[in-house]
Amino acid sequence: MTEISEMTGLELFNQAETGDQVAMGRLLSLAENRAKETLDLIQKKGVISHNCCVMGITGSPGAGKSTLIGNLLSVWKTEKKKVAVLAVDPSSPFSGGAVLGDRVRMLKHSQDENILIRSLGTRGHLGGLSACIAETVELLIALGMDIVLVETAGAGQIDVEVAEVTDTTIVMLVPGWGDTMQVAKAGLLEIADIYVVNKKDLPGAETAARDIEVMLDYRQSTGWMPKVMMTKADTGEGLEELWGGVQEHQAYLSSTGERETRRRHHLAYLIRRMALAQVSSTWDRTMLVELAREVMAQETDLTRATRKALEFLREDLKAVCMGEI
Amino acid sequence: MTEISEMTGLELFNQAETGDQVAMGRLLSLAENRAKETLDLIQKKGVISHNCCVMGITGSPGAGKSTLIGNLLSVWKTEKKKVAVLAVDPSSPFSGGAVLGDRVRMLKHSQDENILIRSLGTRGHLGGLSACIAETVELLIALGMDIVLVETAGAGQIDVEVAEVTDTTIVMLVPGWGDTMQVAKAGLLEIADIYVVNKKDLPGAETAARDIEVMLDYRQSTGWMPKVMMTKADTGEGLEELWGGVQEHQAYLSSTGERETRRRHHLAYLIRRMALAQVSSTWDRTMLVELAREVMAQETDLTRATRKALEFLREDLKAVCMGEI
Repeated sequence: MTEISEMTGLELFNQAETGDQVAMGRLLSLAENRAKETLDLIQKKGVISHNCCVMGITGSPGAGKSTLIGNLLSVWKTEKKKVAVLAVDPSSPFSGGAVLGDRVRMLKHSQDENILIRSLGTRGHLGGLSACIAETVELLIALGMDIVLVETAGAGQIDVEVAEVTDTTIVMLVPGWGDTMQVAKAGLLEIADIYVVNKKDLPGAETAARDIEVMLDYRQSTGWMPKVMMTKADTGEGLEELWGGVQEHQAYLSSTGERETRRRHHLAYLIRRMALAQVSSTWDRTMLVELAREVMAQETDLTRATRKALEFLREDLKAVCMGEI
Repeated sequence: MTEISEMTGLELFNQAETGDQVAMGRLLSLAENRAKETLDLIQKKGVISHNCCVMGITGSPGAGKSTLIGNLLSVWKTEKKKVAVLAVDPSSPFSGGAVLGDRVRMLKHSQDENILIRSLGTRGHLGGLSACIAETVELLIALGMDIVLVETAGAGQIDVEVAEVTDTTIVMLVPGWGDTMQVAKAGLLEIADIYVVNKKDLPGAETAARDIEVMLDYRQSTGWMPKVMMTKADTGEGLEELWGGVQEHQAYLSSTGERETRRRHHLAYLIRRMALAQVSSTWDRTMLVELAREVMAQETDLTRATRKALEFLREDLKAVCMGEI
């Protein structure tokens, strides 16, 4: 039998499909660290239509995301769902960044064979951190997960990019997180399918919910009207309703054909990533540094140097397009 | 006279060169929001050799970065330096994310005509947030700044990428930030030129400094040996020494030719960005979504779809390489 450490991507995938947690872990490491190889693997496996619920949860540190996820995991456990949690928030206990108590609470779930918890490193490749999320989600879908949940930190860019690969996006806030205008500013207004005002017993919770609703009223939209829900994550209040809301949104996606549309967009994103991986591997640093030297020595200018870099690319693509690679 | 709001990039640049703060602000907005236009402007202006001190400061929220920068600004003010601070840390008072007291302390400097403080938004384009930093720094160098300081949040990816465009990188820690292993884990060990242990009066400060030194001993290096310094940012203790350390590193870069080498690498990065901007603008979403549809309908597979995307690119590059664009 081949040792897991020596398996190819495809062997790892097949082993992970049997439910082997070690193989699954290695497979996700592959997705995180070796983009090219992972994309090759996805190309080999092909892509599938699926009923996986791909969710994103975002919100500032302290909003209660981890507590919420921890309690959702308990719900999903009873329903015997196969779940993967991907944490890209550096302050999350899933990512190892929070206080001991939180982490202990989470760890009890990591023992469950149906639940995979994974922290995505903060050093991405080929276009940053968010990049490997697309591949990782694709692999998890192919492995037959019922739910894939991506947790991000609400810092803007990454959350918006994560929405490129998820179907239902939850934005979490707490009363006093600051102005709800922060949400609008961070570009989260356009991407949220469900808003959750957590710590609903705190003063200002009702106001925060109303503010969001007012902002939503100003938004022109003919499709899904984002829900505004209230929870108290630590006691579990409102969690069943939230999960109900997510399922309602998923049903909406299926019935309107929006699920197919989103899937096409996710795949378009993947194709772009694959093509870009090819392009990136073309420009070796030495060539670019030599071009930079010529610019410094005033033998050429930036415009010409850029054109030269593109010529190199075009020459290189000839072989690719001929199908030689 | 042309209104600033209607100026082209080049006009803005010329106006900013005269010291006009409004024009400078607009120019930086251009760099942040319109990558292509900015890269065109940089191509038009050409690039220059320079003596600008381009520094990066990174460290977790609460390490005291803003206090340190605030007090460094006071030093630089006395020395009549032209300084630009670029804040990409969402928790920084420069970025508007901190408690009122901090922000007020900073604001006094923003009134100074030699000091430009700028918060870079969290929604980047063409490869993320870090992307626009390269262009912004290039513009600030061209505008004749003595010091450009980029503040990041110590979250990993972004810090490592910022080091691609800075010459001297400072990594700040506090005793009890957690293990100094965190630093190594985040990939910051390879990029720091100077370590600062802040809040040096706290217990564990000496230990933290020693830990870093031990880690550095294990690092194979023939060039610059990173300094480990101790400060108390709020009282200003150790700040003169820190600024001395930065200048020492800058002198080292100049005397060894390393400054030239780094400059070439920064330019190589810019050329790559420019070429990539061209490539990215080629793939329109419609074409990619159509390819995705074909994959979903099993009319083609991912490999062929990717190849097709590259063929589109190659065709498009023909015009570019012929110099028609």
